[in-house]
Amino acid sequence: MQQVYFDNAATTPMRDEVIEAMTEVMKSNFGNPSSSHSFGRVSKSLIEKARKTIAQHLNVAASEIIFTSGGTEADNFILNSAVKDLGVKHIITSKIEHHAVLHAVQKLEREAKIKVSYVDLEADGSIDFKHLEALLQTEEKTLVSLMHINNEIGNILDLKRVAILCQEKDALFHTDAVQSVGHYPLDLEEVAVDFLVASAHKFHGPKGIGFAFIRKNSGLQPLIVGGEQERGLRAGTENVHNIVGMEKALSEANAHFETEFAYLKNLKQYCIEKISAEIPNVTFNGNSSDLGNSSHTLLNVRLPLAEEKAAMILFQLDLKGIACSRGSACQSGSSKKSHVLFEILKGEDLLKPSLRLSFSIFNTKEEVDYVVSVLKGFITH
Amino acid sequence: MQQVYFDNAATTPMRDEVIEAMTEVMKSNFGNPSSSHSFGRVSKSLIEKARKTIAQHLNVAASEIIFTSGGTEADNFILNSAVKDLGVKHIITSKIEHHAVLHAVQKLEREAKIKVSYVDLEADGSIDFKHLEALLQTEEKTLVSLMHINNEIGNILDLKRVAILCQEKDALFHTDAVQSVGHYPLDLEEVAVDFLVASAHKFHGPKGIGFAFIRKNSGLQPLIVGGEQERGLRAGTENVHNIVGMEKALSEANAHFETEFAYLKNLKQYCIEKISAEIPNVTFNGNSSDLGNSSHTLLNVRLPLAEEKAAMILFQLDLKGIACSRGSACQSGSSKKSHVLFEILKGEDLLKPSLRLSFSIFNTKEEVDYVVSVLKGFITH
Repeated sequence: MQQVYFDNAATTPMRDEVIEAMTEVMKSNFGNPSSSHSFGRVSKSLIEKARKTIAQHLNVAASEIIFTSGGTEADNFILNSAVKDLGVKHIITSKIEHHAVLHAVQKLEREAKIKVSYVDLEADGSIDFKHLEALLQTEEKTLVSLMHINNEIGNILDLKRVAILCQEKDALFHTDAVQSVGHYPLDLEEVAVDFLVASAHKFHGPKGIGFAFIRKNSGLQPLIVGGEQERGLRAGTENVHNIVGMEKALSEANAHFETEFAYLKNLKQYCIEKISAEIPNVTFNGNSSDLGNSSHTLLNVRLPLAEEKAAMILFQLDLKGIACSRGSACQSGSSKKSHVLFEILKGEDLLKPSLRLSFSIFNTKEEVDYVVSVLKGFITH
Repeated sequence: MQQVYFDNAATTPMRDEVIEAMTEVMKSNFGNPSSSHSFGRVSKSLIEKARKTIAQHLNVAASEIIFTSGGTEADNFILNSAVKDLGVKHIITSKIEHHAVLHAVQKLEREAKIKVSYVDLEADGSIDFKHLEALLQTEEKTLVSLMHINNEIGNILDLKRVAILCQEKDALFHTDAVQSVGHYPLDLEEVAVDFLVASAHKFHGPKGIGFAFIRKNSGLQPLIVGGEQERGLRAGTENVHNIVGMEKALSEANAHFETEFAYLKNLKQYCIEKISAEIPNVTFNGNSSDLGNSSHTLLNVRLPLAEEKAAMILFQLDLKGIACSRGSACQSGSSKKSHVLFEILKGEDLLKPSLRLSFSIFNTKEEVDYVVSVLKGFITH
């Protein structure tokens, strides 16, 4: 049976070059980077080279990149320490953030008694900048946490605009950029975020590794303490092979950015046209069908189907070899409603089944044809 | 130049079978275990099989194994939550624990204002059980955190004796077993610890993965929040290839335990005899030269050298291709004094250079001969 993987926002297949680089490290460089003998020094140089390469891609200093076990840990680390060590008393976020941010913020609200404000959203899921400005009129030490690209509807936040607002109001700015790093070039010299989080497995790298960008002299303290790894900001023996894999994945992504971006934009455009032509009354959630204002990797489709048919749709697609999801990865294929769509859709629209189709360079127009034909069959029968 | 790696307590080379299993997963099973479609289900089944296998090795339930990014994270998770969520007000530990425990406990002392008691040590580094019993005479909710095998001197703690004491006094018992899991069979049905921590890269598995054993209904809450992975106890997409690697490494270790244990015991015995014969007045720290009461993987040698010669010894050994360390990995080759030896040695003994030689199945008697000859040359010239 044909298998089509359209769930690349949940995780991506690894590039062969990444697997090769990692396998080579596992075979040849097993030293502990904290050991000062030759075995250790080789491993240390591998992770420091990776740090430097990744920093260069983001136009920041190598010392500002801290390796973590992934995006979730990095979000937790930054948000926790901002409250505990930087005196943040107020976090402004949105209700459509990833749970790594939302749950971390809600935990801080309960345990550290900080104030949490949720910025209003427009009907398309983009944030209300006027409301954000109003929320920033506060004397309390404030941190804004807004994701760069929404993982369910693909909306792109104007990071620079938020960063400037935050600077004007003396607030800190954290962004979960898990869906953008490795998909878009980012220049953090240009865009003055204080903290940024990325995850390798979202851009054809390995699972279990990510990084936090922490702007210099931030004053953050570690979430995980023990040894002095990562300049004292993250204890635990470094995941050397995964770090090298992440470096390779980011370098490959940036090396091929223009052709791959064009390929994916074209593929998404084709998918929008095909679905629109074949499935009458189909609609798209958020900005996802607006190619200029959403990620080229992601399309969120609302199907003109009654609720009783909606419940089984992912199961039916799975039987046809098609992998996609309703919301974020933790909800992929689950019957749980998406918390993102819950915030931006109303009434009947919320009851209709929505599917997130997310693409990678390994997908083809033929796969789009197959998926659309299966969807069409499902709707008309 | 000959290269000899005698720093296996810092990290171990990976077994070929482990690398193969991981590479296969990276190539073929990239799904997100949280996705319910076929790609996700394959990954989910891989990590649940690994959980079950690891649980069987320890004779516990699969649901009691929580995957983490390593031993340090697992220690932090357990100690933090024991204080925050289980109401622990008093932690009994020792001054020769790994920094992952010591620093986590000291952070809780500062921030959560818990009481910390350090159990007295005997001259050989073993704990004073009478003092432990005395410390347990308290009304406050208490947790005991004592490592199974000391990573610097190899002393083995009688886990069962501590566990029984803790049960009698209604205290919780956490053990950092990073140096024992994968080196000794452990039956946690037999030994009633509440919490145990292991790390794959100490037993020929990958870096960046470990696990926490959390006895059922413990009430622990996650350190890292977000998605619902690991039964809600550890958010973040699972490091599937590393988890499979850890499973393979532990299974290989247990499958070959008897022959490998005998091989290493013999190798260590040979090293003790060789050093004792070739280097007059050499002594050994802790219990490390007592084969029945110390790990078969580790020997801590105190050399009869003046202080001025001691400073450069690791550097000199490194020039001869020999990798070993003075203390824990974070101090490997560093001139920092070992906090463990600082607690158990006095006066001149502390000034003499001590070396931790730690072995694996990939080491040979010829390597021992080489290291001892280099050491001898260094001492006599």
